[in-house]
Amino acid sequence: MNLDTLFGAEIMARCDALAQHTEEPGRLTRTYLTPVQRAAADQLASWMREAGMEARIDEVGNVIGRYESDGKSANAGAKTLMTGSHFDTVVNAGKYDGNYGIITPIACIKALNAQNIRLPYAIEVVGFAEEEGVRYKTTMMGSKAIAGTYDLNVLNFKDRGGISVADAMKAYGLDPQAVGKTARNPKDVLGFVEIHIEQGPVLLNEGRAAGTVTSIAGVQRFQAVVTGQAGHAGTTPMHMRKDAAAAAAEMLMAIERYCAAESPRIEGGLVGTVGQLNVPGGAINVIPGACEFSIDLRSGHDPSRRAAWALLEPELHAIAKRRHVELTITQTLELPAAPCAPHIMAQIDTAIATATGEASRRLPSGAGHDAMAMASMCPQGMIFIRCGNGGISHNPLEIITEDDARLGAKVLYEVLRNFKEA
Amino acid sequence: MNLDTLFGAEIMARCDALAQHTEEPGRLTRTYLTPVQRAAADQLASWMREAGMEARIDEVGNVIGRYESDGKSANAGAKTLMTGSHFDTVVNAGKYDGNYGIITPIACIKALNAQNIRLPYAIEVVGFAEEEGVRYKTTMMGSKAIAGTYDLNVLNFKDRGGISVADAMKAYGLDPQAVGKTARNPKDVLGFVEIHIEQGPVLLNEGRAAGTVTSIAGVQRFQAVVTGQAGHAGTTPMHMRKDAAAAAAEMLMAIERYCAAESPRIEGGLVGTVGQLNVPGGAINVIPGACEFSIDLRSGHDPSRRAAWALLEPELHAIAKRRHVELTITQTLELPAAPCAPHIMAQIDTAIATATGEASRRLPSGAGHDAMAMASMCPQGMIFIRCGNGGISHNPLEIITEDDARLGAKVLYEVLRNFKEA
Repeated sequence: MNLDTLFGAEIMARCDALAQHTEEPGRLTRTYLTPVQRAAADQLASWMREAGMEARIDEVGNVIGRYESDGKSANAGAKTLMTGSHFDTVVNAGKYDGNYGIITPIACIKALNAQNIRLPYAIEVVGFAEEEGVRYKTTMMGSKAIAGTYDLNVLNFKDRGGISVADAMKAYGLDPQAVGKTARNPKDVLGFVEIHIEQGPVLLNEGRAAGTVTSIAGVQRFQAVVTGQAGHAGTTPMHMRKDAAAAAAEMLMAIERYCAAESPRIEGGLVGTVGQLNVPGGAINVIPGACEFSIDLRSGHDPSRRAAWALLEPELHAIAKRRHVELTITQTLELPAAPCAPHIMAQIDTAIATATGEASRRLPSGAGHDAMAMASMCPQGMIFIRCGNGGISHNPLEIITEDDARLGAKVLYEVLRNFKEA
Repeated sequence: MNLDTLFGAEIMARCDALAQHTEEPGRLTRTYLTPVQRAAADQLASWMREAGMEARIDEVGNVIGRYESDGKSANAGAKTLMTGSHFDTVVNAGKYDGNYGIITPIACIKALNAQNIRLPYAIEVVGFAEEEGVRYKTTMMGSKAIAGTYDLNVLNFKDRGGISVADAMKAYGLDPQAVGKTARNPKDVLGFVEIHIEQGPVLLNEGRAAGTVTSIAGVQRFQAVVTGQAGHAGTTPMHMRKDAAAAAAEMLMAIERYCAAESPRIEGGLVGTVGQLNVPGGAINVIPGACEFSIDLRSGHDPSRRAAWALLEPELHAIAKRRHVELTITQTLELPAAPCAPHIMAQIDTAIATATGEASRRLPSGAGHDAMAMASMCPQGMIFIRCGNGGISHNPLEIITEDDARLGAKVLYEVLRNFKEA
């Protein structure tokens, strides 16, 4: 077996192959519990089996490959080291976000298996079925189910077509009543290690191929609905309008202005994004009676983030009041920042130093990851590898090099092979 | 025949009945060339025949009822007086916008016919099939076809489902090749009189049931597309973003601020509306790479409107440039203001004074109407009747009273019965 090919060309080819499973011709979109996701899951399971694992699809649609421990008597009832990432995508996604973090540990297990290496712990590679929050207004459903923090109310959430999570599960062949069985016993789990593209420009700008993540930024998400008064665009004087879209636009500006101004002054930084913005049923000649938008607010430091929202929320309501429109804001997610475990960071540092010949760069993650949900169950750590194209992600321009893919695999291989409990 | 019932209760009941033809349960939405519009057209044709007219559906889907002249030799080859309005609606519309202006002249003809009154001119009642511009990004397709100003390029316009106007016509049983036949010879047409709800608060605030329209505001419409750079909401610092939605929001604010500030100072007033605003495929955790919005700009005075756009357009491009996003603005419509014909205004004034016992209020129309397109072919005039609920229109809260409906019918009846050429 040629490790250079396995960790380089094969990983790149599999990222390309998995991206063929898409709901939209010509671009990559793969959302939770769709037939396309099922085809991708079957592909992952097939690669897991080829690498020497037993593979199954769990109660929420995660694909889990298990590589047993050496089974020696001293390791009877051995714990499990978990690794993996998600294989759902955003709309018009890149090929590496999430998917690289499943394909790479499969390659690592394939390398161990080819060398007949068994370890004093089992290793499970998980392809989490839902992380991005595209189909339903909640995220990390796959990792939360495993971590035992899945909110069963989510089963009633509906997608744009009115299909609930529970109904989508049934159509996929899953039993919504059995979701609770997905949760793992923390006593059985050694830890969780995730390898992921950085999705930002830090490593690229510093000329480094990989880095050790220190913590994952905390996030709050909201859905906002502005209700004004629809009316005829030609006959309502400007000063008599209750224009929901104009109010939403002013709120968006307020969020952007606040985050841009405060981020440099705030511990842990601050970013605020309105990613969804829509006038439902809007017409050219009708003053918008309603406008919907999303808010995503993040900081590496939870108190900073909460303080920012405590100032922003009343500002949005003040805009609504001044414009005589109604504003409802519903929080759909709050995840605290998740510090990575020091002993896992240290092992990643060592593996990166071995692979690159220089001390690892430690950096925080602005993006949320499955490791964030796993952190509530077990110690976790993350390896970042460098993105090209200025660090663009969630976009078809997202790229990594084959050399960086290989280096990431080598780092993960070392960590998986030599893992030590704290 | 009881004229009070015919002009009051029956008109109100027919507005209710026609509103049952809707594409959406629980709210009124009726767009161009849908099966629902066909059912409404059949209903109108049936009422036309019952009133003593010959009814047909023309080459673009307009419903036309013709009440022949007295046929006396002196009037051989008599000209035709046209009246009517549109029976397509906006999304979630009121019942009276357009529809009242078809149902009312049908009642007038029914009254003439019941009294065996024929006039020295024929009268045609037109239900225009398309005025609002909901399904396709163009408006007044029905009246433009009759006025001979239909742009045949429009046949290639596609709706959101990708169906072109030409294909929709074929599915409706119409021949797109025959659109040109819809145009009337201006020599045969005496004039066009439209009765319509005001869709604004002027008559309501002044306690008047009806008014004489002096001119219809000119309008320009645009579709704008902002193209930025999609990216991950957590990992892209605020100052590195090219957020298309934030740029569009700033543009919306600029349009609103400019129109609100300048309207009181501008001859003919100025209103600007962003009625459509959307981040295509937006996700909570993705910085918008694109944002689409519409612009509708109106003034009763064409040079004022054009001067306003000449200042606004570069301001929008300056916003795009500063934010490093692309902006394309496509004009989809420009209609000049249409002054009403003085001799028709005078006849409407007389009819209103007779019906109400006081001099008519003359007022401009901020809304576009089919009369605007008809103005390019023949002299036109409009009767406005009072709206309740603050003048709200394009909304289910749009209302008129039965008394006002009756008064409007009496005014139109007088004008149709006693029409004089200039």
